[in-house]
Amino acid sequence: MKVIDLNCDMGESFGNYKLGLDEEAIKHISSANIACGFHAGDPMVMEKTILLAKENHVGVGAHPGYPDLLGFGRRTVEATKHELTNYIIYQVGALMAFCKACGVKLQHVKTHGKLYSNAWENEDIAKATAEAIAKLDASIIYLVMGGSKGEIALRAGKEMGLKMAREAFPDRAYLPTGALTPRSQPGAVIKDAAVVVERAVRMASEKKVVAIDGTVIDLQIDTICVHGDNPSAVEIVKKIKSELAREGVEIKPMGTFL
Amino acid sequence: MKVIDLNCDMGESFGNYKLGLDEEAIKHISSANIACGFHAGDPMVMEKTILLAKENHVGVGAHPGYPDLLGFGRRTVEATKHELTNYIIYQVGALMAFCKACGVKLQHVKTHGKLYSNAWENEDIAKATAEAIAKLDASIIYLVMGGSKGEIALRAGKEMGLKMAREAFPDRAYLPTGALTPRSQPGAVIKDAAVVVERAVRMASEKKVVAIDGTVIDLQIDTICVHGDNPSAVEIVKKIKSELAREGVEIKPMGTFL
Amino acid sequence: MKVIDLNCDMGESFGNYKLGLDEEAIKHISSANIACGFHAGDPMVMEKTILLAKENHVGVGAHPGYPDLLGFGRRTVEATKHELTNYIIYQVGALMAFCKACGVKLQHVKTHGKLYSNAWENEDIAKATAEAIAKLDASIIYLVMGGSKGEIALRAGKEMGLKMAREAFPDRAYLPTGALTPRSQPGAVIKDAAVVVERAVRMASEKKVVAIDGTVIDLQIDTICVHGDNPSAVEIVKKIKSELAREGVEIKPMGTFL
Amino acid sequence: MKVIDLNCDMGESFGNYKLGLDEEAIKHISSANIACGFHAGDPMVMEKTILLAKENHVGVGAHPGYPDLLGFGRRTVEATKHELTNYIIYQVGALMAFCKACGVKLQHVKTHGKLYSNAWENEDIAKATAEAIAKLDASIIYLVMGGSKGEIALRAGKEMGLKMAREAFPDRAYLPTGALTPRSQPGAVIKDAAVVVERAVRMASEKKVVAIDGTVIDLQIDTICVHGDNPSAVEIVKKIKSELAREGVEIKPMGTFL
Repeated sequence: MKVIDLNCDMGESFGNYKLGLDEEAIKHISSANIACGFHAGDPMVMEKTILLAKENHVGVGAHPGYPDLLGFGRRTVEATKHELTNYIIYQVGALMAFCKACGVKLQHVKTHGKLYSNAWENEDIAKATAEAIAKLDASIIYLVMGGSKGEIALRAGKEMGLKMAREAFPDRAYLPTGALTPRSQPGAVIKDAAVVVERAVRMASEKKVVAIDGTVIDLQIDTICVHGDNPSAVEIVKKIKSELAREGVEIKPMGTFL
Repeated sequence: MKVIDLNCDMGESFGNYKLGLDEEAIKHISSANIACGFHAGDPMVMEKTILLAKENHVGVGAHPGYPDLLGFGRRTVEATKHELTNYIIYQVGALMAFCKACGVKLQHVKTHGKLYSNAWENEDIAKATAEAIAKLDASIIYLVMGGSKGEIALRAGKEMGLKMAREAFPDRAYLPTGALTPRSQPGAVIKDAAVVVERAVRMASEKKVVAIDGTVIDLQIDTICVHGDNPSAVEIVKKIKSELAREGVEIKPMGTFL
Repeated sequence: MKVIDLNCDMGESFGNYKLGLDEEAIKHISSANIACGFHAGDPMVMEKTILLAKENHVGVGAHPGYPDLLGFGRRTVEATKHELTNYIIYQVGALMAFCKACGVKLQHVKTHGKLYSNAWENEDIAKATAEAIAKLDASIIYLVMGGSKGEIALRAGKEMGLKMAREAFPDRAYLPTGALTPRSQPGAVIKDAAVVVERAVRMASEKKVVAIDGTVIDLQIDTICVHGDNPSAVEIVKKIKSELAREGVEIKPMGTFL
Repeated sequence: MKVIDLNCDMGESFGNYKLGLDEEAIKHISSANIACGFHAGDPMVMEKTILLAKENHVGVGAHPGYPDLLGFGRRTVEATKHELTNYIIYQVGALMAFCKACGVKLQHVKTHGKLYSNAWENEDIAKATAEAIAKLDASIIYLVMGGSKGEIALRAGKEMGLKMAREAFPDRAYLPTGALTPRSQPGAVIKDAAVVVERAVRMASEKKVVAIDGTVIDLQIDTICVHGDNPSAVEIVKKIKSELAREGVEIKPMGTFL
């Protein structure tokens, strides 16, 4: 039977600020990427989100980012490879502590925002992430971009002996190279829910995606990235889930099949 | 043979800000209380300080504080017991991650500043600390104030089944009750190095201290708190160490004998 | 003709975190209390909110708070009177700079959260606020709690020669002493929109409020505090505005009539 | 008579962290660049440093930086021109408030760290700074790098109608182009105190500097940047001051002659 993981960013609230419909979205996904307090999240939110994941049998992932709450981790903060390694160890360690306290094992690490996308080009950032994970627990999965853009991170992770997971974005247009269409280009983000669902199903069941020029690309992936920011995003996740079921694709936390 | 631990706050630098003569002081102590990034310390400093401790065969402790870098953890930030528990889990977890990465086991937890002294009166704060430790690893020692002021924390730790360590302050005057003389009173802080050394030796070898009114108090302690902030503080630590040796008191990390 | 001001907390978003329906609420109020970056708000939000107020002919106020984004200014951070004075100067100064850049004059200062309510009992905090304002510009209005609880701040402001404004809370129950009913008591917060509107109108037109035991209290006030957090809060503001118009009470920024 | 200004970064302490020998260095300089709380400095330090400058008849400048205390403003934080403008308005406004409270006029603005050096190449950053100053008070001097590297900022400031000051670095080697020798090259930083003093005097009296290849470069400057971080740096400042006096060059705050 075919199997896929659905991962979603969660635990991005901070203090009095609420972000994301975690309680709704958690019901329809299999893995949660939980912010660790540098770009979003705080100790109360981290614990609450891990418990929410546990209760819903969702795999728990750490989602470390740049130390920049004001920028929500979406902008680069200059840092050496050594600094980044330590920023990641700090954040993942803090989340692992809550996992321990909640009786859950950390399943994976996925970097957030610019720390994620900078690793598409910057080998040091990919290696910093892989080394941080390896130093903490080499059985934690390193979740990276699928397709051509994820190759640097994939190699960095494999060199450190990590288990790797690759992801795809059903709501993003792809270039024929297998990279995401830059957000500056028209059509880069797909808004039509039906199209997003259809792409997600094809990604999961056939491991393929149609690029912006019509080319059909092979996309070796283990998990599909979905969103839970707003009610319509949650609706899409629900539909992806039910369509996958209809296609006979099982949704399971990546840690159960990788 | 008599044995005592010497503990010292360390790793309190932050970014470009350097605080404490850690490289000097580390040579003369047996346990380091390492700041965890909330009131002082950062990921680079945490790793560096753990490695320094490891190299000098010094026990590694976490030194969590209030989330208030501006106040250096020396002022109270209102928080519920649940919030404090989670602030401590977060910080200790981050330090444990660096311990893991550096191949060291976390020996103890000692809270910092107001988080430490508030537990003298506030049972919730003592319990928050004890519960945080128990949730992470019940074999980690909880280091508390010796004498009457430490009783609340001692009880909280024992109820959680933790190993406890009690400390004394040779440079602080004691009231006949066994509490520290408030800093607002004259003579509360002892500046005469010879007197501090003499008191430290008596604390370690006889488990006694002379209170401000001449009363001799029994002080069940496992470790003595020393300082490494400035050259004269380091000189005092050196003298305490050599005098203890002369008196036949062995200095060892608390984790080796508790 | 009778006149009243309607004030509302605004500019409480931060980075990627959005809080409050400022764009909606601004249409129905006459004065905005704008967060200054310590407990909420950031430089982009501050500029945007001042421009929004300017466009809607709403008086601009600074809303300084404790330096605690995680706690949203709703918890006490221990600080000396001198520190608080400087925290307020810093925040109000930053907002005044945006006022200058936007071609607006700062109308008032209202402290936020615990910095506001602590001044009900703590004279040092009231004086810190009054002195900060006086040092910056003695023509800025100091907005304080109306009724008995505001007396300490009122006196502190008058001693510094400041123009004072007093406010009432139509959605909060009052004790016969003129103090707010503590939130811990049932009925402390009034949820029934019609009742809130009715109370607001009576506060504005008669300067009276009915206490929780039925006593009618005189409440000398210049402004009524309303909320814009959610759609139903905005609905209440709209109704207060239209009811006041029907009662012949004019709504104007406090700076125009104080 | 010849005249020059000596400027020095100050007010870089934060909370419990002390940086720089401000009390010593202030006696020998004519203008202070005071940190504003984003990369260094805090409300207590800002007030104290302004009072120190006032007492020593030293011109007060704002020294805004990137919002990154951990990085001390020495690393780039990605931001749009609009964001940078607002970050600068916020910081300069906060410092202006303390100037107001202390009865001092803000003399100049000099950006810190990477915000300073990024403006050597990035016109947006130079314009953001110039626009922020112009929006606050066009009579505030914009202090920029002298020589070729300062041209972008010089032009940006002039376009906004600002008074401009240019500075030189006597302890840094210059390329024949008039740019600083990159720190990565040997000899980039001049350690020999006598040489630094000699260069400072020539910069001030002849407006010339000898480049690393022996070329004599014209350097139109109004102020010389000195350091007060450590005792030997302060010694150099003292010597520069006395040598300038001997050469008949008067040292005055830039605001008095620009």
